[in-house]
Amino acid sequence: MKIVIIGVGLIGGSFAKDVKKLHPEAEIIGVDKSDVHLNEALELQIIDRKGDYTDLETADMVYVGIPVNVLVTELPKILDASGDETVVMDAGSTKRLICEQVSDHPKRRNFMACHPIAGTEFSGPAAAFEGLYTGKTMIICEVEKTAFKLQEKALAIFQDIGMRIRYMNPEAHDKHIAYVSHLSHISSFMLGKTVIEKEKNERDIFDMAGSGFESTVRLAKSSPDMWTPIFEQNKDNVVETLEEYIQNLTTFKQLILDNDFENVHLEMSNTNKIKQILKGIPLTKK
Amino acid sequence: MKIVIIGVGLIGGSFAKDVKKLHPEAEIIGVDKSDVHLNEALELQIIDRKGDYTDLETADMVYVGIPVNVLVTELPKILDASGDETVVMDAGSTKRLICEQVSDHPKRRNFMACHPIAGTEFSGPAAAFEGLYTGKTMIICEVEKTAFKLQEKALAIFQDIGMRIRYMNPEAHDKHIAYVSHLSHISSFMLGKTVIEKEKNERDIFDMAGSGFESTVRLAKSSPDMWTPIFEQNKDNVVETLEEYIQNLTTFKQLILDNDFENVHLEMSNTNKIKQILKGIPLTKK
Repeated sequence: MKIVIIGVGLIGGSFAKDVKKLHPEAEIIGVDKSDVHLNEALELQIIDRKGDYTDLETADMVYVGIPVNVLVTELPKILDASGDETVVMDAGSTKRLICEQVSDHPKRRNFMACHPIAGTEFSGPAAAFEGLYTGKTMIICEVEKTAFKLQEKALAIFQDIGMRIRYMNPEAHDKHIAYVSHLSHISSFMLGKTVIEKEKNERDIFDMAGSGFESTVRLAKSSPDMWTPIFEQNKDNVVETLEEYIQNLTTFKQLILDNDFENVHLEMSNTNKIKQILKGIPLTKK
Repeated sequence: MKIVIIGVGLIGGSFAKDVKKLHPEAEIIGVDKSDVHLNEALELQIIDRKGDYTDLETADMVYVGIPVNVLVTELPKILDASGDETVVMDAGSTKRLICEQVSDHPKRRNFMACHPIAGTEFSGPAAAFEGLYTGKTMIICEVEKTAFKLQEKALAIFQDIGMRIRYMNPEAHDKHIAYVSHLSHISSFMLGKTVIEKEKNERDIFDMAGSGFESTVRLAKSSPDMWTPIFEQNKDNVVETLEEYIQNLTTFKQLILDNDFENVHLEMSNTNKIKQILKGIPLTKK
């Protein structure tokens, strides 16, 4: 089996590690615009050798883990270079624009639009680890547009890795993911900003902040290179979630100002049911 | 040594466990308005026996871990009942009102105003565990108002548990803690609310939400009984932090609407320095 990983960072690198564990005989070829990352991936034995798009013609499987703005321009070229038996899977956090971009591509049937609900706030080859995908959800969009034989090949790998599969259309994906992922990142970034602006003395933040703050602000460590194009491609949905979030915060603030602490309590009690919801979310164990 | 724990939940119960480990000979007496909690604490061997305020006269040390609205009314009564050698320490998340409330109390010198930066989103005796306080910060307010001998007794215990001590005035405490703790809780509760309102189908939240959402929304599991009076007592500071947070979110939303993704990127890059700040925060390991 010949597998090409385009983008050898956290997402691509972790996929390579899981596949190598399942198929030790597979040849894993890395493609990345950063030669530093490629060398790092080689050293960490994430890939067996460096490659380029000429390797795609004979690849069984191509997994693309690159920022979504680059994905939009690279995906057509990747499909151009792919062979008839090659299945190309992306891992982009947005799906509408990406699916549109290749909807009329002559090799559309070689593409499977994917979004693994897996990741950490870190990036680069050194952040990759075995098991990132285990127990996580793989969202697949427009599955009917992928050739049946290639669907089978991709699904077999996802199942062997231990992923749960969910099918969805790209518009629904982008709308829901804005709430459960994109909004969390913005709320965390802006929390970090608000605290940093106020607490000029960083020593005070250490001393007074507990694990609650650490948890809530964790996503503010995420890569701006990765997240800026996500917000750009999912602009309408992200703005909608932000407006609702700001509205909820404003209402809560007004309840406090009005000394209406009965309703402050009620707002929190109603939200406590998140406990039950969170029980269903698989955690990342490294 | 005779130690009375008033409020045998996460905070009081964990303190009892740490003290018992250091001083196995100490008698730990539990006082709580909930007899269910007291029985649970007995069963879990967090306390040696149940007690009441008549035990305070001969106690060496009293640790009060109850919601701040109850603390404000109970603390004067607790001091009334305490003996000359008793040091009474609270664990309230607000400090200004509590210090004001007892500022003219004839036994003010028996009181040490404390706020341990330690906790989890869980509550009750079953949530208590050994080691919650180790490596964490204990903030002490108006230390000069506590009798020197009693200061020494309290500090010795905190140091033996492995806590870092920081001194602060009550106003500064309430102002800073609004940023690094109270705001995190509200941002998390309102994130949970926004997502729950939108995602009527809870199954969709499980399937699409990853560990990032889980982390950001974790504090929305916290107890409304505990947090409502905190927001009430720290109203002015909490409203101020909320206004700044809402302003930052509104600015970020406007940058997206204006397609100013260069500044969207810059906002996130500037906030990435939270990485360095977070390195100094001790995590809760259970």
